[in-house]
Amino acid sequence: MYQSKMKLNKTTEKVIISLLKAKGNKMDIWELSRKCGYLLDVIKSAELLKKVGAVKLENSTVTLTNKIKFPEYLVKNERPLNEVMRKYTAYRKRAVFSNDDYDQLSILPGAVYNKLAVMLKKNDLRNRDVLCMGDDDLFSVACSLTALPKSITIFEVDEKVIGFINKISRELPIPIKTVSLNLLKSLPKSYSGSFDVFVAEPPDTVKGTLLFVSRGIQALRKDGVFYLGMTEVTLNKKQWLEIEKTVLATGIALTDIIGDFEEYVIEGNELTWKGFEKLPKWVNKPAKKPWFVSTLFRGEVAGVKKPIKFSFKDVKKELITSLLP
Amino acid sequence: MYQSKMKLNKTTEKVIISLLKAKGNKMDIWELSRKCGYLLDVIKSAELLKKVGAVKLENSTVTLTNKIKFPEYLVKNERPLNEVMRKYTAYRKRAVFSNDDYDQLSILPGAVYNKLAVMLKKNDLRNRDVLCMGDDDLFSVACSLTALPKSITIFEVDEKVIGFINKISRELPIPIKTVSLNLLKSLPKSYSGSFDVFVAEPPDTVKGTLLFVSRGIQALRKDGVFYLGMTEVTLNKKQWLEIEKTVLATGIALTDIIGDFEEYVIEGNELTWKGFEKLPKWVNKPAKKPWFVSTLFRGEVAGVKKPIKFSFKDVKKELITSLLP
Repeated sequence: MYQSKMKLNKTTEKVIISLLKAKGNKMDIWELSRKCGYLLDVIKSAELLKKVGAVKLENSTVTLTNKIKFPEYLVKNERPLNEVMRKYTAYRKRAVFSNDDYDQLSILPGAVYNKLAVMLKKNDLRNRDVLCMGDDDLFSVACSLTALPKSITIFEVDEKVIGFINKISRELPIPIKTVSLNLLKSLPKSYSGSFDVFVAEPPDTVKGTLLFVSRGIQALRKDGVFYLGMTEVTLNKKQWLEIEKTVLATGIALTDIIGDFEEYVIEGNELTWKGFEKLPKWVNKPAKKPWFVSTLFRGEVAGVKKPIKFSFKDVKKELITSLLP
Repeated sequence: MYQSKMKLNKTTEKVIISLLKAKGNKMDIWELSRKCGYLLDVIKSAELLKKVGAVKLENSTVTLTNKIKFPEYLVKNERPLNEVMRKYTAYRKRAVFSNDDYDQLSILPGAVYNKLAVMLKKNDLRNRDVLCMGDDDLFSVACSLTALPKSITIFEVDEKVIGFINKISRELPIPIKTVSLNLLKSLPKSYSGSFDVFVAEPPDTVKGTLLFVSRGIQALRKDGVFYLGMTEVTLNKKQWLEIEKTVLATGIALTDIIGDFEEYVIEGNELTWKGFEKLPKWVNKPAKKPWFVSTLFRGEVAGVKKPIKFSFKDVKKELITSLLP
């Protein structure tokens, strides 16, 4: 008999969500595969759902016949993103973090919206244990306002950010757990393999990015997912290649690379950015509108998860986005 | 003195194109970096253009002062994509290729449009030597109709495709060179390092994809670029990881992975696709609307280009998109 407590795999979750949204709660196997991925896995999920009495399978079509027993987290409606963003921007107005010692520069609310939209589409929020590594842009708050994750945790070095999140956490649909942590130090064992998703906007240097990814991968479960912002402005393609190779060696497949995705706020202080003092003299005015953008990377653990292999010697010098060399 | 024949690097080309399109033919260095990539390279390009008397540099702003001597390929206007597509679809109507022996299934015109749009944005068409590996969807014709590439070549195994292209080639803005070639055989040396861009929609199997990529990489110049379609329908994430790792080992960095990008035509014969006869009995009706989609991968040679390392034993069995295992 169907157990509402049964653990559903990610493909099965996607199949259920797709059917719930579909007209007449039915889709043919072809459309379902387009939405949910690898055809053989989608068929397996459909047959499992048949076995537990939730769907009927006929003429290439999967029809939901009994949805009352699906777990609550799958059945509940998404809150409209506009509403989420309205509340999120109100929190942003109460707190701006821009401490260069911590390489803080927030992505714009539009970028938060875009990232949430991708995470919803990929089903990386519902019932997930989400980890935000560094949270000066309050992305954890946006996640919480969707009311979808199972839990939200931030690793953060700045006590001001932690203080603010702790203060507002009780007002939020899902409380945010704050962990005061310097990623330079190794991750406490208790966090290993504890999260479904990590989200990070690391310093845009090779070692800075890989340090964040290294801790993040340790924190991920064996079928975990990550979202990573990486720029073209201060990292060239040779450096991208180095980062990508190191990431793939941990067993993670890249599933999405979306360019010009995340706009950052402008603070008008580009000329004081690390290394920017070396720019030629005619570069003497800061930017007038947002220009610093990141590409969004999404990856999934696809093989056996392995720790990152990379020398973090001198990583301290690369914890600030900078023009190197 | 400025030489109109001077060889411009890719960043400099992008800077010129961006300035030509900009209001007042000027942009500040920040916006220019957003459009053209790695900041230090953009600054180098701006200073080179200053040296040859083409721009002035002042207050962080690059202003075009003299454009008459830029090479023709940079100055000429893009033809509107809608016009390109109108002509392209007329050619498509004259020729449909769907020989399963060659794993032929065309992407829809909408996907051709999307791919051209990305190639324009990335400046991968102007003055490029473009190689289409397999051309049943007549993508070479669409490239030619933009009138931007320096040359267009197709590697094709199907004599019918070659015959059709040869027949129409003289009507096109840029003639298309056809090469009758079976990718199972090694590439004639004369094609090594001869192309700026290759475009492929390989059979969606690991070995099939890597065979195409292997020949393509051999054919690319040392700063070459590729566009590759890869599906989630018949390839799982473990297989994606294997393909991505092998690609990165050749010195190519992935710059874009755009999901649900290329829709394929439907022919209503899914049930006869290789391996699909093993699907369960309830899967007994073909699709009614397009469902088979590919993700678009773009990569750039970023390191030292190396040949692919992969065993192509039994690759013959994987030259048709199929459900494996």
